[in-house]
Order: sequence, then C-alpha cells, then structure tokens
Amino acid sequence: MDESRQKRKVSEWVEDLKRMNSWVIGVDLGGQSIRAAWVSSEGEMFGALKTQTKAEAESSEAFGRIHSLVQELLDQPPELGMKPLGIGFGIPGLIDLGSGRLWESPHFPAWKNLNLTEILKAKFSEPVFVDNDANVAALGEKLFGSCHPFENFLYCTLGTGIGGALFLNGDLYRGSSGLAGEIGHTTVDPLGPSEVTGNSGSVELYASASGLNRALAELRTTDPSLNAFSIRDLYQKYKKNQSLQSQQSIKKIFDRMGEALGIVFANTVNLLDLEAICVAGGLTHAWEAFGPTALRVMRERSFVARLNRVKLFCTSLNRNESFIEAGVIGAASLAFLGSLRRAQGFQVDSGLQGPSLSS
Amino acid sequence: MDESRQKRKVSEWVEDLKRMNSWVIGVDLGGQSIRAAWVSSEGEMFGALKTQTKAEAESSEAFGRIHSLVQELLDQPPELGMKPLGIGFGIPGLIDLGSGRLWESPHFPAWKNLNLTEILKAKFSEPVFVDNDANVAALGEKLFGSCHPFENFLYCTLGTGIGGALFLNGDLYRGSSGLAGEIGHTTVDPLGPSEVTGNSGSVELYASASGLNRALAELRTTDPSLNAFSIRDLYQKYKKNQSLQSQQSIKKIFDRMGEALGIVFANTVNLLDLEAICVAGGLTHAWEAFGPTALRVMRERSFVARLNRVKLFCTSLNRNESFIEAGVIGAASLAFLGSLRRAQGFQVDSGLQGPSLSS
Repeated sequence: MDESRQKRKVSEWVEDLKRMNSWVIGVDLGGQSIRAAWVSSEGEMFGALKTQTKAEAESSEAFGRIHSLVQELLDQPPELGMKPLGIGFGIPGLIDLGSGRLWESPHFPAWKNLNLTEILKAKFSEPVFVDNDANVAALGEKLFGSCHPFENFLYCTLGTGIGGALFLNGDLYRGSSGLAGEIGHTTVDPLGPSEVTGNSGSVELYASASGLNRALAELRTTDPSLNAFSIRDLYQKYKKNQSLQSQQSIKKIFDRMGEALGIVFANTVNLLDLEAICVAGGLTHAWEAFGPTALRVMRERSFVARLNRVKLFCTSLNRNESFIEAGVIGAASLAFLGSLRRAQGFQVDSGLQGPSLSS
Repeated sequence: MDESRQKRKVSEWVEDLKRMNSWVIGVDLGGQSIRAAWVSSEGEMFGALKTQTKAEAESSEAFGRIHSLVQELLDQPPELGMKPLGIGFGIPGLIDLGSGRLWESPHFPAWKNLNLTEILKAKFSEPVFVDNDANVAALGEKLFGSCHPFENFLYCTLGTGIGGALFLNGDLYRGSSGLAGEIGHTTVDPLGPSEVTGNSGSVELYASASGLNRALAELRTTDPSLNAFSIRDLYQKYKKNQSLQSQQSIKKIFDRMGEALGIVFANTVNLLDLEAICVAGGLTHAWEAFGPTALRVMRERSFVARLNRVKLFCTSLNRNESFIEAGVIGAASLAFLGSLRRAQGFQVDSGLQGPSLSS
C-alpha cells in the first residue's frame, strides 16, 4: 500500500467523496433521542427517523432501538434494492478508537467500558464506523457544511454542556489519548462557582443550557414571575421585545454568555491561529442574543482574530427545525471516509490517529 | 520524490539525525544578545560565543554582528577544516516562512518587512535556515532536550513577555498563518488590566518579567525598602528566607504567577490533550517559587491533566548558567532538519507547513 495515501488527511479525501455517488446511513445517539437517516455523498438526507433514547435504561435496550431504527431505514432505501456503503455512529462520551471501547459517557452513566464495535458488528452485516459525537459533527461540517473551506477550525456545541472538536491542518486533531476538544472546561472566571470536574468558573457555567438554567434559577429567587418560563421562552420573549419585568436581567444572562464564549474563542484563536469557529447545538436558536457579543469580545481580546479576520458562525446543517441533522450528517461523513479508506486498501482501525474505527 | 517522505514529521527524522555524525552552527538572536555556537548531531555545543544585540540600531548593524560572530566560529571549527552542514537562525517575531520575510518583531520595532532569507543568503555561502525563536526552541527541546519522548507538547518561554510554540502529532503546529502559540495573551482575569494587544487580564500581566516588575512597582509604592531590589534579588532573598518586611507580598506575587500559569496550562491541556508542558526562559530561575503552584492549579482545574498525568517541567537545555543554550540548540536543530530534508531531495521552502525555510 502507498504509505502517502495511508497518511492522507480528511481534507484530501474531499474530491474522492464527490465522485462516489453513493449512500450510507448515519446514526446520531443523543441523551434524548436517537436520530438516523440515509445520507448521500452529496449530503442529501433521505427517510430521516427519530426515536427516544431512554438513557436510564440498560444499554442493550438502546442498542435494540438503534437496531430497529436502522432496520426500518434498510427496508426503505432511496432506490429499490440499494444497500448502504456503511453505517456511521456518533456516540457521546470518551471512546478509545484503538479498541472500540466506550470508557464512559455523560449521558449514560450506567454504560461503562462497553465494546461498541463488537456490539454493533453483531447487529449489522454492513460495515460500521464509530466515533465521538463532537468529532463526527466536525467531520460533517467539513465535508458538507460551512467549514468546507477551512483547514483549521474549532467546532463547538452548546447544549446541556459544551462540547468541542478541533480540525487542524486539514484533519481531526484528537490529542495524545483522544480527549482533545474539552473547550467547555476553559476557565473564564477564576473565582467563579465550581463544576463537576473540579474546575471553577469554566465557560460551561455561563454558556451551556445547564449554566443558563442556573442563572435563571437565581433570577427566580428575586422575581417569581419568571417561574413559568424556560430559557427558550425567555429568549423568545426577549427577541420579540415583549415587556418583561426582568428584560434587563435576561439581557445580562445572554451578555454574560456571549462574553464567556468570546473569551474562550479569543484564547483558542490566539493559541491555534484558526480560520474559523463553528457553533452548533440546541442553544444556537438564541444565536442573535449572544453571537454578536461573542464575536465582539473575541475580536477585542485577540489580535490574531483581528489580523486574520477569523470567522464565527452557526452550523449550516440546521436547515430543518424539527430534525437536528448535524449529528446524522456527521455520522454519515464518518461512514463515507471509512468506506473510502477501506476501498483503497487502508487499515481503518488505525487507533487514535485515524478518523474512524473499523467494523 | 516519494510523497510520503515529503510529509514526514519532525519526530520521524529523529533516527536519521542520530546517524548523521555532523555539525551545524546555531544562531539565537535575542533582544539583548546574539548567541552562536557549533552544535553536533548529538547535541554537543562547541565554541559558544555571545555579543550584544543593540536592538535600537539599524538592522544592517545587527546582521553585521551576526556575520562577524559566525565568521569567528567558522574560523575555529571543532575539527580542523570542518564545515557546517548549514546555519540555523532563531529570530523573535512574526516570520512568513513562504517568503522568508520578517513582518515585525517585538524586540526590533524598526525592522519591518525585512527579507531575512535574502539578507542571510547574501552573507553566507553555507545553506541558511530561519524560523521564529519559540518554534526553533521547541524543535531543540524535541530533538535534544526533555521533550524527546513526547509527540504533543506546549513549549512556553517566560521572559520579558510570554511566548509559546506547539508541537502536535509529532510536528510543529503553525496555524493558518504562522501565528499559533500566542499563549501569553490568554485571559486569566477578565476584569484585569489591559495590555498592548487590546486584551485585558492576560497571563503575561502576571507571569512575565514585565508583569512581575509591574507588581513590584505596585509594592514599592507602599514599601520604599524594596526600591533597591530587582525581581531576581527578591527571589534570591525569598528563597534564602532572609527576613524581609515584604516577604508575604513577594510570596503573593509568585503565587499569583503560579496560579495564572496553572489556569492557562489547564485550559491548554483540556483543549489539546497534551502529554507535557515545557517551561523555558529567564524566569525559570525562580521555578521553585511558582512551579509547584502552577502544577497544583493545573491539576485542580484539568481532569485531562489528572487523567493523563500531564508532565510540567523546566527545559533541560539550561545546563550552563552563563550561556543560555536553548535558543542556540534550537536554531541548530532547525539546520539539522533542513539539511536532512534537503539531502533527501525535499523542497525545504515549503511554506507554512514545513519546519524550516530554505536558503
């Protein structure tokens, strides 16, 4: 085998992908829902399906649901008789790509040391490819989304927590043991409250859904009129300029969110000289409330961001409000890359350096 | 040419280096001094020389001094008639490796848009190799120092300012336009004082020589007995437990330095999943006063640092108190790598991706 091709970066496969003209299945396992769909090598989605995860149940139950969902897709292909090249999975948690084991996952506290590859291989006759959810989402954004032009970017998901993935020099960067991208635990206020990892004042406390809810709970102690509202409601009202007794306080919450993100983005751009930062996850629906502040603070605090006009934007893989597609497109991207490598005689289970795990 | 060899990382050249059995000349251009020496492929130094930089003078004068210094070395080789494989230069400032231009340098405000390669090629018949001083020092630490076992590390210099270089996946990481490693501008206190780049509360304000002097100046306003002392004097006295009225205040300065560094190191390890952080520069003489605090705070604030037992240490290239060798060994490392690549038919002026600039 040609050694240089073994070392090919993700960005060097893009042309091959365009010529594939084929389909895979992508599966996005989230704490709330499992989403799956057929995805074409053009990035089209077909037959999208969704079911509840029931994270509290045994892992065997969740894998049973995944199996049913994929079977349903296999039974209704985009064209009669079509088979997918492979099935890609995005899984939240720490995954050892060498062994295919899930060490632990924030959403599934009972799942420890599961051999994902073995479990999924036993369920499907198609080749399966597994990686961390943030990594596959970044891959999807590179192959099919707004990060297409960039070789160096941070992908940042704002959900219950804050997740991250790094794409450096045209490839996913995983770090020395696959833990890279833990942007959520960056300190933005050394004297701030402590969080679960032992750190204090980390960005997750100000810019994740749990952080916003904590801030909202504080507001409620002085303003019981807020009891009926969620963060989402508040943002809707804030956006519509509906008079709310606590309008200013809510603005402060989103301002603090934007400032915290701006500090983290500035630090990251100064350190890594990135071209772009792509923000995804459930909180992007409130982008207008915190995005401009984050951009302003990033520019104020980073001369590298000013010099290189670093771009900050939301994922473009959110065209459909009722079906979050970024994770599914990401999982599908993993399957495309794995299939391309395998088709050309590459080992795919190449440990932490490779972009995917073999079936 | 074999494409895979063109893509070889620095860490993949180490075995070739060991078999070279040859010498180069390394030149470290600093704001205060120019240092130069013969360096062997075993990392031995021979004939070390030093002269003043006179940063305020015209660039032509400094390049004249460099020329004299190198000529002196060439006239007195380690063995009669020996020629160096090449001459490596570590230069402070923003360097465009594609064109060989120095955009600007903090130490030489009058030097703008200099074509370093042209200037140096005109002065020497040997092949010349040029890169940023932090990058070459990190290379030296990888080839000949304590970072030898690591594929992912941060190299951090604590001097007048704070500089940095990143070694990721076995190679120097330069970022999208060669500006990566600007660790000194990481925010550690969002409400802290502002600095020259427009950021405020960055680590440089607490953990560089200029930051320590600022803190010392503040102390002097309430304690004139400190007027006669420099930071270095204070550290010596602090270490010797000599009674000083301001012993506690001085301890606080070093504690704050250690805490600020600990926060930055924790952020960086969480983001990049590093194996090690290597600290160099003039302030390492006070390592005992801030190092243990930095290590403790990094571990407290980073679960990745705890999980992976990330190492934090001073450069091992500081064996000689009277001659700072890290920069010279680094510049020599650049010349070795460039010579190896060239000897095997590689293009060396490969722009920002390559580890060196061609002569």
